[in-house]
Amino acid sequence: MSLKEIAAPIQDHLRKFDDVFASSIKSKIGLVDLVMKYIIKTKGKRVRPILVLLSAELCGGVNERSYRGATLVEILHTATLVHDDVVDDADTRRGFPSINANWKNKIAVLIGDYLLSKGLLLSLENDDFEFLKVTSSAVRRMSEGEIHQIQKSRQLDMDEPTYLKIIGDKTASLLSTCTEIGAASSTMDAEKRALLREYGESVGLAFQIRDDLLDYVGRKSITGKPTGLDLSEKKLTLPLIHALAQAPKKEGKDILSIVKNGGKKANVKRVLEFVERHGGIEYAASRAREFSTTAKHTLASFPDSESKASLIAFADFVVEREK
Amino acid sequence: MSLKEIAAPIQDHLRKFDDVFASSIKSKIGLVDLVMKYIIKTKGKRVRPILVLLSAELCGGVNERSYRGATLVEILHTATLVHDDVVDDADTRRGFPSINANWKNKIAVLIGDYLLSKGLLLSLENDDFEFLKVTSSAVRRMSEGEIHQIQKSRQLDMDEPTYLKIIGDKTASLLSTCTEIGAASSTMDAEKRALLREYGESVGLAFQIRDDLLDYVGRKSITGKPTGLDLSEKKLTLPLIHALAQAPKKEGKDILSIVKNGGKKANVKRVLEFVERHGGIEYAASRAREFSTTAKHTLASFPDSESKASLIAFADFVVEREK
Repeated sequence: MSLKEIAAPIQDHLRKFDDVFASSIKSKIGLVDLVMKYIIKTKGKRVRPILVLLSAELCGGVNERSYRGATLVEILHTATLVHDDVVDDADTRRGFPSINANWKNKIAVLIGDYLLSKGLLLSLENDDFEFLKVTSSAVRRMSEGEIHQIQKSRQLDMDEPTYLKIIGDKTASLLSTCTEIGAASSTMDAEKRALLREYGESVGLAFQIRDDLLDYVGRKSITGKPTGLDLSEKKLTLPLIHALAQAPKKEGKDILSIVKNGGKKANVKRVLEFVERHGGIEYAASRAREFSTTAKHTLASFPDSESKASLIAFADFVVEREK
Repeated sequence: MSLKEIAAPIQDHLRKFDDVFASSIKSKIGLVDLVMKYIIKTKGKRVRPILVLLSAELCGGVNERSYRGATLVEILHTATLVHDDVVDDADTRRGFPSINANWKNKIAVLIGDYLLSKGLLLSLENDDFEFLKVTSSAVRRMSEGEIHQIQKSRQLDMDEPTYLKIIGDKTASLLSTCTEIGAASSTMDAEKRALLREYGESVGLAFQIRDDLLDYVGRKSITGKPTGLDLSEKKLTLPLIHALAQAPKKEGKDILSIVKNGGKKANVKRVLEFVERHGGIEYAASRAREFSTTAKHTLASFPDSESKASLIAFADFVVEREK
């Protein structure tokens, strides 16, 4: 199923979300409003709002709070991307010039801050304090997870449990925020909320393992990123972690010193060959499928519905995607 | 009075604040915690916590909520500085290497995000929703104000009311947040809260006008910044705005085209001379004193106390400071 098909049961709600999002970020300052219109024009796939709305639909039906929850996570996500592009000096985003490319770094950072404040105010003015608690925890986990990964990668020392902790923090935290907020917007049932949260965590782990795997097996023409980009940044991810655990110690040590010396093309090729030979690719793929299956099982107690089918399809989607 | 003398009535509370601040930003991730310890070691003058605590003391007495309010604004302020240093590519902060200089941009941005999330969580976990509303509004005003200034400066079109709106948004908003939060932590009396908020706004305007004035008359050996830095960034501030309003149109037009062409030393000198000749320096100084006086009058209805005397001294301090 494509993302568009997955979103079909909440298609009308998604349009309503677009309106709430647009009106939530409006500004009376001309230049700020101009950038907001640009952000709306260059919008992405809206994966996070889709997850919020599907979860809300599953747990009792989308309502006003669901739109606000979806808007909060999308605003937060957008702010993060705007700041990321400054740090990475990225010229483009979604095929359009990035905000920093169009308006310089200073404006881009301020726009990110503006977005954050508007997300906060939207929730605070509507007493959606619970949303904010869930979301702030996710922001803490995301920043800690990213730094944890940098720290561990510098030390070239990472085992599978640490890897899972890190990707849980940096990636799964936001997806589980989406599904938990969606559930919280439409039901008071604590068990349903917990199940949706778990679904989001498992789907998030599957998503990130797949992402890391694509760094090894993806084709640049599809992913838009060169193979081995993580490696050249000395990021240790599951395929390599598993291969290192399987290989003889001496061989592993040699590979690690190659990784340490950075990602020349010939080196990347040697690491890829090592990972493949020791089953790292296959293993990571199977782990991603396991987490995807766990996610689907989490929804077992819900009666069948279009939104349930879509969430199950989303769990398949994250491990099948080629980019 | 020096800032140290101003803070004397809340000296013990300030030490307690230091503890709350330090324990609020702790992390279990080694590298994150290391940077937090560095932030604590290189702490600034704590102007904002001092304002929160003095306001709380004036309105009924410092309590646990006051420490959390002070911590929220200081965390927010710290996060802003960390992000600013990334954007400005600054190597030092308070005489120490900046976070980006020590740990690179990526980490610095993540550390800023981490701090923001910890500030949010501190308030959310303690149901300090009111603090968050006040603070989020300030963040919105700060980012809009900064962008508004950039927009107007690009157009080289700014009158005094617009200038006051901009500095109100970008500077006074945070100082009034401090005094309002301090009051809100210790009294339910809406009038007292409004008075403290007004005090903060007026002090903030006086503070920023003085800051802009120092760009014209400050000595680099004291301010640490070269004279005419704002000018070279084409920032139009009150001394020049007033001089332009006073001068013959033709002369003003010539000066604006000099500003437009950027800040060579000879050009800066000519603009300075123009501003001085048309009374811009004197006028800005008198406007700063007016706002400082307004701030002091706002406190007239409070009975005399050490904390009141300190807030009055602070209003003098902001217009007398040489850096």
